[in-house]
Amino acid sequence: MSDLIAFPASLQKLVRELARLPSIGQKSALRLAYHLLSNEPELVGSLIDAMRNAQENIRLCDQCFFMTETERCSICRNESRDSSILCVVEKPVDVVSIERAGEFKGYYHVLHGLWAPLRGQGRDSMRIDELIHRVQAGGIKEIILATGATVEGDATALYIAKLLAPFGITSSRLAQGLPKGGELEYADDLTLSHAFSGRKIVNM
Amino acid sequence: MSDLIAFPASLQKLVRELARLPSIGQKSALRLAYHLLSNEPELVGSLIDAMRNAQENIRLCDQCFFMTETERCSICRNESRDSSILCVVEKPVDVVSIERAGEFKGYYHVLHGLWAPLRGQGRDSMRIDELIHRVQAGGIKEIILATGATVEGDATALYIAKLLAPFGITSSRLAQGLPKGGELEYADDLTLSHAFSGRKIVNM
Repeated sequence: MSDLIAFPASLQKLVRELARLPSIGQKSALRLAYHLLSNEPELVGSLIDAMRNAQENIRLCDQCFFMTETERCSICRNESRDSSILCVVEKPVDVVSIERAGEFKGYYHVLHGLWAPLRGQGRDSMRIDELIHRVQAGGIKEIILATGATVEGDATALYIAKLLAPFGITSSRLAQGLPKGGELEYADDLTLSHAFSGRKIVNM
Repeated sequence: MSDLIAFPASLQKLVRELARLPSIGQKSALRLAYHLLSNEPELVGSLIDAMRNAQENIRLCDQCFFMTETERCSICRNESRDSSILCVVEKPVDVVSIERAGEFKGYYHVLHGLWAPLRGQGRDSMRIDELIHRVQAGGIKEIILATGATVEGDATALYIAKLLAPFGITSSRLAQGLPKGGELEYADDLTLSHAFSGRKIVNM
């Protein structure tokens, strides 16, 4: 930050705060700070209002831990969905992605973390106990473990599948393989080998 | 934004506000919003404080229009610099970059814009009149036109050089060519052709 020595203190502070945000480095933080200060003062005002407002109003859904302004989120309140199937995801943003795809019509459970014991993130850093309670409450027949196709996502899915095994519920995992529109030429080795081992019979 | 339909209103608003910032798209805005809300509340608090504090305290230097908390910025207040040479830049961030390089020891003039008539940005959208006043006040022997090596940066430099011609001051432009460490293989055509036309005699 000594690079900013020519900048006044309050601007250095703003740049430092912005650079703490994910995927914002010092150059982006500088550009953002300049943008915030050189545009109409309303820009900063409405951003501050939005942050404060969201912080005051947003809480986690009592049931699925998605973000909501009420006790239960809009998805959990929707009684026309299929309560026999539960989709387990890492973060609230994943719910948005899945809803956008429009394929899934059951309910969600947001873990707010992944199983990564090497980084000190074990069972307690996820909403696992709450998941077990939901399963114990009955009515769920299948759990889709929709964590990412990463090492930690796979490990978390396996870990949860093992925990849920005694309850006699089907655990499934999202298909892994070539993305739609993806050419073999551009697929990485791991994706390609997964696509091979997970190949499906074509029934004519 | 209909993608966010599952999100509560105050969160949608926050994502929209964040996505208005430069180089932040909707995906980044979603990630930022989740980060802001899922970490300690102090994170949002200190970011808001830093924004408000910077907005209240930062003003433009009376002389060079760099950002400062006082009437004159720290560079203009430094009397040990060379007052015969003035470096003209587009934005305050450029001053930071040049100070970091440590080569230049004169004073600055920040235009806060470029000459881009097609986008409706003419003389009035830059601090050109103030630049002329500084030149008229005397003492300046050389002006380095350090706007970027872009079409608009070049046009602005030419435009200012023409305006300053009657004052009999040397106008110079930053050297354009291969970047240090740059291999010919990776240079784009325009950079390479500039590097050729601007080649320098090697004196042995």
